[in-house]
Amino acid sequence: MRRFILNLSPISYRSTRSFYQLRVHSTMSNSVSRSQPKWHRPAQKETPVLKLQNSLTKTKTDFIPINGRRVTWYNCGPTVYDASHMGHARTYLTMDIIRRILEDYFKYDVLFVQNVTDIDDKVRSRFSGMVVVINHWQNRSDHSVQIILRARQGHLFETMKNATPALSAELVEAVKNAWKEYADSKMERIDANASKDWPAFKQKMTPEAVQSALLIDEKFKMHFTALDNSYNAIVNAEKELAANSTSKENAGALLEQSKDVVCLWLDKEKKDQVNDPKVFRQLPAYWEDKFYEDMAALNVRLPDVQTRVSEYVPEIVDYVQKIIENGYAYEASGSVYFDTGKYDGHDGHHYAKLEPWSKGNQELIDDGEGSLGSKLEGKRSPNDFALWKTSKPGEPTWDSPWGKGRPGWHIECSVMAGAVLPENIDIHSGGSDLAFPHHDNEIAQSEAYYNCKQWVNYFLHAGHLHVEGQKMSKSLKNFISIEEALKKYTSRQLRLFYLMHQWDSRMDFKDTGMQDTMDKEKFMNNFFLYVKAMGRKIREDGSRGAIEKSDGSLTHRFNDEERELMSILAQKQDNVHAALCDSINTPLAVQEMLDLISQANKYAASKGNLVNIHVLEKVAKWTTSMLKVFGVADNGAEIGFGATNNAGAANLEDTVMPYLDVLSKFRDSVRGFAKEQKTHTEFLALSDKLRDDELVELGVLLDDQEDGTALIKFVDKDELIKQREIKRAREAEKQAKKAQAAALLEQKRLERLEKGKVAPEQMFLGLDKEFSKFDENGIPTHDNEGTEVAKSRRKKLQKEWDAQKKLHLEYLKSVPK
Amino acid sequence: MRRFILNLSPISYRSTRSFYQLRVHSTMSNSVSRSQPKWHRPAQKETPVLKLQNSLTKTKTDFIPINGRRVTWYNCGPTVYDASHMGHARTYLTMDIIRRILEDYFKYDVLFVQNVTDIDDKVRSRFSGMVVVINHWQNRSDHSVQIILRARQGHLFETMKNATPALSAELVEAVKNAWKEYADSKMERIDANASKDWPAFKQKMTPEAVQSALLIDEKFKMHFTALDNSYNAIVNAEKELAANSTSKENAGALLEQSKDVVCLWLDKEKKDQVNDPKVFRQLPAYWEDKFYEDMAALNVRLPDVQTRVSEYVPEIVDYVQKIIENGYAYEASGSVYFDTGKYDGHDGHHYAKLEPWSKGNQELIDDGEGSLGSKLEGKRSPNDFALWKTSKPGEPTWDSPWGKGRPGWHIECSVMAGAVLPENIDIHSGGSDLAFPHHDNEIAQSEAYYNCKQWVNYFLHAGHLHVEGQKMSKSLKNFISIEEALKKYTSRQLRLFYLMHQWDSRMDFKDTGMQDTMDKEKFMNNFFLYVKAMGRKIREDGSRGAIEKSDGSLTHRFNDEERELMSILAQKQDNVHAALCDSINTPLAVQEMLDLISQANKYAASKGNLVNIHVLEKVAKWTTSMLKVFGVADNGAEIGFGATNNAGAANLEDTVMPYLDVLSKFRDSVRGFAKEQKTHTEFLALSDKLRDDELVELGVLLDDQEDGTALIKFVDKDELIKQREIKRAREAEKQAKKAQAAALLEQKRLERLEKGKVAPEQMFLGLDKEFSKFDENGIPTHDNEGTEVAKSRRKKLQKEWDAQKKLHLEYLKSVPK
Repeated sequence: MRRFILNLSPISYRSTRSFYQLRVHSTMSNSVSRSQPKWHRPAQKETPVLKLQNSLTKTKTDFIPINGRRVTWYNCGPTVYDASHMGHARTYLTMDIIRRILEDYFKYDVLFVQNVTDIDDKVRSRFSGMVVVINHWQNRSDHSVQIILRARQGHLFETMKNATPALSAELVEAVKNAWKEYADSKMERIDANASKDWPAFKQKMTPEAVQSALLIDEKFKMHFTALDNSYNAIVNAEKELAANSTSKENAGALLEQSKDVVCLWLDKEKKDQVNDPKVFRQLPAYWEDKFYEDMAALNVRLPDVQTRVSEYVPEIVDYVQKIIENGYAYEASGSVYFDTGKYDGHDGHHYAKLEPWSKGNQELIDDGEGSLGSKLEGKRSPNDFALWKTSKPGEPTWDSPWGKGRPGWHIECSVMAGAVLPENIDIHSGGSDLAFPHHDNEIAQSEAYYNCKQWVNYFLHAGHLHVEGQKMSKSLKNFISIEEALKKYTSRQLRLFYLMHQWDSRMDFKDTGMQDTMDKEKFMNNFFLYVKAMGRKIREDGSRGAIEKSDGSLTHRFNDEERELMSILAQKQDNVHAALCDSINTPLAVQEMLDLISQANKYAASKGNLVNIHVLEKVAKWTTSMLKVFGVADNGAEIGFGATNNAGAANLEDTVMPYLDVLSKFRDSVRGFAKEQKTHTEFLALSDKLRDDELVELGVLLDDQEDGTALIKFVDKDELIKQREIKRAREAEKQAKKAQAAALLEQKRLERLEKGKVAPEQMFLGLDKEFSKFDENGIPTHDNEGTEVAKSRRKKLQKEWDAQKKLHLEYLKSVPK
Repeated sequence: MRRFILNLSPISYRSTRSFYQLRVHSTMSNSVSRSQPKWHRPAQKETPVLKLQNSLTKTKTDFIPINGRRVTWYNCGPTVYDASHMGHARTYLTMDIIRRILEDYFKYDVLFVQNVTDIDDKVRSRFSGMVVVINHWQNRSDHSVQIILRARQGHLFETMKNATPALSAELVEAVKNAWKEYADSKMERIDANASKDWPAFKQKMTPEAVQSALLIDEKFKMHFTALDNSYNAIVNAEKELAANSTSKENAGALLEQSKDVVCLWLDKEKKDQVNDPKVFRQLPAYWEDKFYEDMAALNVRLPDVQTRVSEYVPEIVDYVQKIIENGYAYEASGSVYFDTGKYDGHDGHHYAKLEPWSKGNQELIDDGEGSLGSKLEGKRSPNDFALWKTSKPGEPTWDSPWGKGRPGWHIECSVMAGAVLPENIDIHSGGSDLAFPHHDNEIAQSEAYYNCKQWVNYFLHAGHLHVEGQKMSKSLKNFISIEEALKKYTSRQLRLFYLMHQWDSRMDFKDTGMQDTMDKEKFMNNFFLYVKAMGRKIREDGSRGAIEKSDGSLTHRFNDEERELMSILAQKQDNVHAALCDSINTPLAVQEMLDLISQANKYAASKGNLVNIHVLEKVAKWTTSMLKVFGVADNGAEIGFGATNNAGAANLEDTVMPYLDVLSKFRDSVRGFAKEQKTHTEFLALSDKLRDDELVELGVLLDDQEDGTALIKFVDKDELIKQREIKRAREAEKQAKKAQAAALLEQKRLERLEKGKVAPEQMFLGLDKEFSKFDENGIPTHDNEGTEVAKSRRKKLQKEWDAQKKLHLEYLKSVPK
């Protein structure tokens, strides 16, 4: 008991200390002091907790997962019918950043589910013809459609060709029809009469006219060529037919030369006959792969579970059936609609929880119903939306209690989320465009299905993306695909840029912003390089991080400045934590990290070579660890960004393989050269090529030394290529100068030879107007007037003669005997 | 207001629904429903919180850091005077595991400080002579002492040699004394009279006697040689001296031939004169480097801040001064002692908080005072302990207000922790051997210095290590250095073994346990390899993870079995979290992970090729992420252990360099061969060597194909070496057989040549007893009795003759002309 008082009331104890002192020594030290004294439980310090901007409240609410540390998350995945653009990146990169922070910083065990929408009016409409306007986005990349069309057309064309045993009037007529249709559709904007008189049209197509046509249709030349080839083939076929030359070969020639024309016509006429589901899967499969390639390039984590709508149709039918049973949906003309009127405000249900103010916004509702939505019939209210749509022949269909049809857009997410995750999920996310009606309809469907009050607890919506201050759109020509963005910036730079923008705010993607990002990237990288270099230096300079004093004793490098830097680090760690808790405020977190690096740089500058490397490495390691959490630095890096590629999970084999590949190929060549008995010079050239080509591509510089060995240096690949190009340019310049000099020399030599054709004995003879007499060598002795040539003149002439003698001998030498 | 009631009382609302229904449709849907409905805040689920086994309470107490998420931690570092052993690993590997879990799993921002004790009686005693018994551990590795001794002895020897201008009677006498001392100390156990009559002793040393001597002293031969050389040199020197040959060379010869003998004597006589502090730093510096090498090999994270006692002596003096001022220490005979009597039980202070029951345990106290402790004088109580010790000349000393001296052992940790960390720290840790008196004294010092009640909130002590059931000790010859352990097991296996033992319990390091660990490692690895291979297969087999039904439609692979596996994963995630919260129960956590893998294997076995790869990859990724937290898997790995080496933070350059090195050297050779105009066969041999030697060492198999290219395969290095050895053995066998066959052939050839020496014409002539007449070729025509040889016989003889003709021609050919 007394001990209890002692601990709780040290002051009262202290005042009676002298009284107890003796007793403590005599008895207490043998009893009380033989057991452990009371332990003082530390006071719990209030720290920020994670809040998320929740679209269900439009406020930041405490994040409370249903199962403690485990988080279930459904993210609306891509509709795979085109290349992904920076607007998609805004959603997927943003959600990846939040996911990584939840997983790697807050250490939640997340189960992340994401769908692929591969049945959709958008997807289907890509099959339905050439002219498609999809969503808000421009059709940037036609080549996948071309892939699918060509596969289907190729199939139809080969079938037709094989089924044509001979050239016939019917065949020629059919091709002519196809030709006319093609000409009318493709040349209409150029000249509506083109199909009526092709030769006349052709004559009109002067180079100037072609230029004008290209301004109207950039594919004009392609179409013109297709039509002209086919036209000539038809003319030829008609001649053959007249001559009764109806062989299968002639039929084949007509078809082959008219292939483009015939294919378009075949596709239009017979595409509905191509019912193999595999054909319908090719386009979405192609773009699904492309999507994941883009995501990998952006270092976006794969979803834990990926679902495809096309694989969940039976579950969708069951789900819709249950909603009907629960009284919130009705069938009409083979389609099933959600009954918003019966649902909203009844049984505790609310329709449009995310954007109740958008209820009745017909534009948004129509957009959500898909491009074929307006063709559906039997809706009781314009606010109702399709759960199941009846299909026409030639469209992919599934059986259902309501006849053949296909799922509505919104239902898929409710069903797939429900198939993988429990009835009540923690997070649902997507782009903010999807809030109404897509997500609001999802919520209504799921709460109607489960008859529950709150299907999703946290709804996260990534903010909009603008480009240079304007919405990304076809008309503004500011549409940027992920692939294009990655040609201009690295994945790391893009991610840093996204990190520097609050995830749920509008983000303006602009070059000046990217420049600022790259400056900050460089600022960080310089710090990392400095710390690593300094670490190496201190470990090698013999100081062991201490300072030797004049008396030979050592002193440490941990003083006030180091305590100060550690204290700044602690403050920044708290600030970054607070920023991330404040609805994942990454712009602030990055700013705090940059500020920390500034402070560390100041510390380093003030200490010079006497820095305490431990405190610098601590700052660099912590900063790196945060960059790893953000997906910016490689997981393998301890300090710095790590490898330049997106080596999120590089294993040894993947990492080393490119280098081994070069090694193996070089060895193959050496063996090949040996077997082919190549010269030793060729072996040397092979070695040079390895250094200058293959290894440069890998960012490796082999620096050949005098002693025959090479130093291996890891350098920036682009820098290396630049250097190599400079070296090659210099070499080329040198060669050019050399060649020029050689040419000059050769020219002079030829001039000399030309001059040397005349024998010295003959050289003065022709000058008979000047001289009258010559000696035996033909050197003038007397001038025209008979006067003897002066001695000095004579000397000069002799010199000229000698020079000519030399030139002539040279000439004689050059003449083949 | 009504909406408020609606939301809070859904039941009462429901009961009045029909009443409100019409009004809702008419007015409410235009007012109330245009704002978001109430959001239901999820219920906070109780999850376990981290508790740690706290030596200050001997219970598991909630871990509450002083500053929320930030943790300050001081770990008692090594005393660097010898190689680190598995007992050290028990502390450092254990604390590394706890630190990684606190940093990477619980995501605390830890500041981890660890000292290096490089001033210590143990360290110093290594300088003081040859026979040292240190702590509990055997002196396993003498070579560092040898390094230091040799450096010092070399210095003393060279000094002496340079200072000896000529051979003198004094010099000979000095060497004779050194010799006698050496002989007496080294030969005493063999023959006490050896030094008295060396020639007689030498004669006694028959091979059998040497064998017996080696059993007594394994270094007998070394000492014998040293003595014999020196003896002969002395005899010779005496002759030279008698002949007055006193040159410097002769003096030098005597010294050089007596070097071992002289050095030992010099060191004993003059070591106190070596006062350069650098000499005293060499031994601890050497072992400090070795310690960090061992730690790196064990993948133990570097401390954030490392401190060395030798660099903190002025701070220690100030600290001691303050304790004296606070009234808890006193000076006596140049030493300063902590006054336990005055401290314990006064002013709210308690001495020996960790082990109050050990108070007065003189054996522990003496051990804590160091081997020179008993020589200190002036202690008021045997429980008091030294804060500062007076030093004798020849020992490293520092100035202090109490005269020249050195710090006590315990004070260093108090001072260095205080220099880097704040007054109140979260965690202090070390081996359990250190609890009393070292840590208890630390606590007393720090609480006396700060006049505070609780310097450290959590004291963690790693459990003991046993080897095959017994304490590790010199006498049991079961002492294992970290280096030795790493020769037998990989760092990953050792860490897994440690993980499978509760950190604060006794751990028995035994081969059967390691075998069990390796089995579990293989079990995990097999799972990872399977998941990776299956992932590749499914991504390449065209199925895209779906099943095609007979009607051509696809179905997914996420059904009850997959939901079940995800549910098991969730359970295991919770269990592992609970285990780690329960004072870092890693054995249980690992068991749960192994169990999860078993369940995943069962799932995989039941589904065959139709597995859902997502759920398997999720299990594998989560398991890998936990292994990364534990420091078992590489940070770069996404699934599996990652690189086989300890690439805790492998960057591209480090990873790729060994391969590039091989490439560069191969290229160097190719260039060298080309310049030396080597043959093409030599180039091929070089290529073979690259494949069979260098690349095998890197675990890379180049599989040469018919077409002259090679396939690159990553395989197990040991397996590859084994295969190569088998191949080489087979090759050798083949060669041996070939050689044998060739030898046989050669033998036969020689036999034939021997036989062929006789010309066919001569061959029958010698057989005069059988034949009497011969033809012109020497073939018998008539036998001994004059009878003509029968035709058949004649034919046979002709055949023999022909054969001999052939042999003879062969012989003639072989004879050099």
